[in-house]
Amino acid sequence: MRLGDLVTPALLVDAALLEANLTTMAAALPGPRLRPHVKAHKCTALARRQAAYGHRAFTCATAREVQGMVDAGLGDDLLLANEVLDLRRLRGLEARVTVAVDSPETIQAAAGAGVAEVLIDINVGLPRCGCPPSGAGRLAEMAQRAGLQVRGVMGYEGHAQGLADRSERARLTEEAMQLLLEAHRQVGGDVISAGGTGTYDLNRWATEIQAGSYVLMDTAYAQLDLPFRQALGVLATVISVSRDGYAVCDCGLKALGMDHGKPSMEAGHQPLLVSDEHLTFAVGQPVKVGDRLRVLPAHLDPTIAYHERMHVVEGEEVVETWAVDLRGW
Amino acid sequence: MRLGDLVTPALLVDAALLEANLTTMAAALPGPRLRPHVKAHKCTALARRQAAYGHRAFTCATAREVQGMVDAGLGDDLLLANEVLDLRRLRGLEARVTVAVDSPETIQAAAGAGVAEVLIDINVGLPRCGCPPSGAGRLAEMAQRAGLQVRGVMGYEGHAQGLADRSERARLTEEAMQLLLEAHRQVGGDVISAGGTGTYDLNRWATEIQAGSYVLMDTAYAQLDLPFRQALGVLATVISVSRDGYAVCDCGLKALGMDHGKPSMEAGHQPLLVSDEHLTFAVGQPVKVGDRLRVLPAHLDPTIAYHERMHVVEGEEVVETWAVDLRGW
Repeated sequence: MRLGDLVTPALLVDAALLEANLTTMAAALPGPRLRPHVKAHKCTALARRQAAYGHRAFTCATAREVQGMVDAGLGDDLLLANEVLDLRRLRGLEARVTVAVDSPETIQAAAGAGVAEVLIDINVGLPRCGCPPSGAGRLAEMAQRAGLQVRGVMGYEGHAQGLADRSERARLTEEAMQLLLEAHRQVGGDVISAGGTGTYDLNRWATEIQAGSYVLMDTAYAQLDLPFRQALGVLATVISVSRDGYAVCDCGLKALGMDHGKPSMEAGHQPLLVSDEHLTFAVGQPVKVGDRLRVLPAHLDPTIAYHERMHVVEGEEVVETWAVDLRGW
Repeated sequence: MRLGDLVTPALLVDAALLEANLTTMAAALPGPRLRPHVKAHKCTALARRQAAYGHRAFTCATAREVQGMVDAGLGDDLLLANEVLDLRRLRGLEARVTVAVDSPETIQAAAGAGVAEVLIDINVGLPRCGCPPSGAGRLAEMAQRAGLQVRGVMGYEGHAQGLADRSERARLTEEAMQLLLEAHRQVGGDVISAGGTGTYDLNRWATEIQAGSYVLMDTAYAQLDLPFRQALGVLATVISVSRDGYAVCDCGLKALGMDHGKPSMEAGHQPLLVSDEHLTFAVGQPVKVGDRLRVLPAHLDPTIAYHERMHVVEGEEVVETWAVDLRGW
């Protein structure tokens, strides 16, 4: 199949850039040093590629992601790095599943669903989940009393990930990891899980890094000094060309995560207006109705979650089509 | 089934508010005066409710929406109110399908796919699709020469829809419709299709109004002086509560269209941070882990497009579950 045969809008993955990203990361964080986060791509076929590069332990954000990874035979060591109260679906899975907990209620939910292992989730500066470092020991004891094995701690320095200034990113990462190590001293265990694409090489304290975006990238992460290339785009068709210097393509709000702002375009085109099924752009290089172009999403994760599938391409050739099979909840 | 049985995040539709919206609109724009836009809800079960209220002609934004409506037996009179180059899937559908065209290329695409009828799409002020009013006659002739029946014109005054000032909204609508009538004088035909939820009662020139959001509403449209109530919410579970005055629920970027900004919340909660699977909020009335609450999306259409289904609820009871079956392309 060729690009011209695809119904648009369609998610495209550049095969060569994907391989480059996989290779670069596997060299920097080989094997279990990386625990790839599947929330970024929600695609078991892509997770299988990551496993082929040596990373057999994965991070998930939802119970459905865990379930889908097990169904795909990728259940060697799955971390549900999120607080989930409703863990019914994890019962009886033939896989190693570890769940993050940060409260008596989440400990109870894990124990009640027959989960065997947990990490204590620590708030290391991002105002989101996680208990204060000082409360980690008490929670670990509570988990052990509930029959859970405590493998260690986790803490996501999300407030550092997107900072353009590398030294500031490094400083905040170190501060965050001091909090995580303080918690780890109380909790013990083999695992100190943290990090993301923005801090993958700055975080020297975690035993494993939970990066996800590195493998496909987006325009937000592309602003940073990272060696990963933007492999993901949305193929769109020009559907209308105005005489007033703008044109419209069919890559709208339902094909793009918009929380990081408008997407970027090639050939000097400038996005002006994004509506449900349309992207109006100021025309750079001349376009005509029927032309196809690539739109580069500002934020990977909520973009992919809109699409049923992604197409791996080499030039004009579609070499593989992968289901985005971990969507929903 | 009860609300407590649902996996969160989950789309909820309040049955009573939905009925009220359907009733109010059917009284204002009875039968064919309304051509409901299915892009808002992407749900044939909900379209069937609209049909039961007398609206048997529908507006679609994608070829898949057209196809799904035909499969659901709702193909009496479908308008694909968008420029689509790839119309292969419309060939041979047993339904009345009219397609918007605004260029020689889109006319050729319609004729090539065996489409019988078209509307000439006119740019009435929104920088998006549509030919200039002055070019309408020439395009209509071109369409007729290509064997297409020209039913009339369409022009969306999208730039007027969201204006808070009703008189300004009315003024822009009138200006836009003067352009559409200018085009209609050249084109002829029975149909002058335009309008939306924000101008449903201000647009006195169109023969039919393409409103979609009215049936479920969102916080953006709720700012206007409209008689429709917000029937749609996202049910979320509180998964973590901080001692620092905030809490986190599981309604993140993959459950919410974010182009109109953050969602709203009840009980005095204030959204602070939305990430992929989390919504951090400043706590109003006290919450505890495991509590369930409703999040009100800022923008309906891209919110619904993330979800596989919506649940119709009366109080705590789930009375129906509808597939969001028109997603994708």
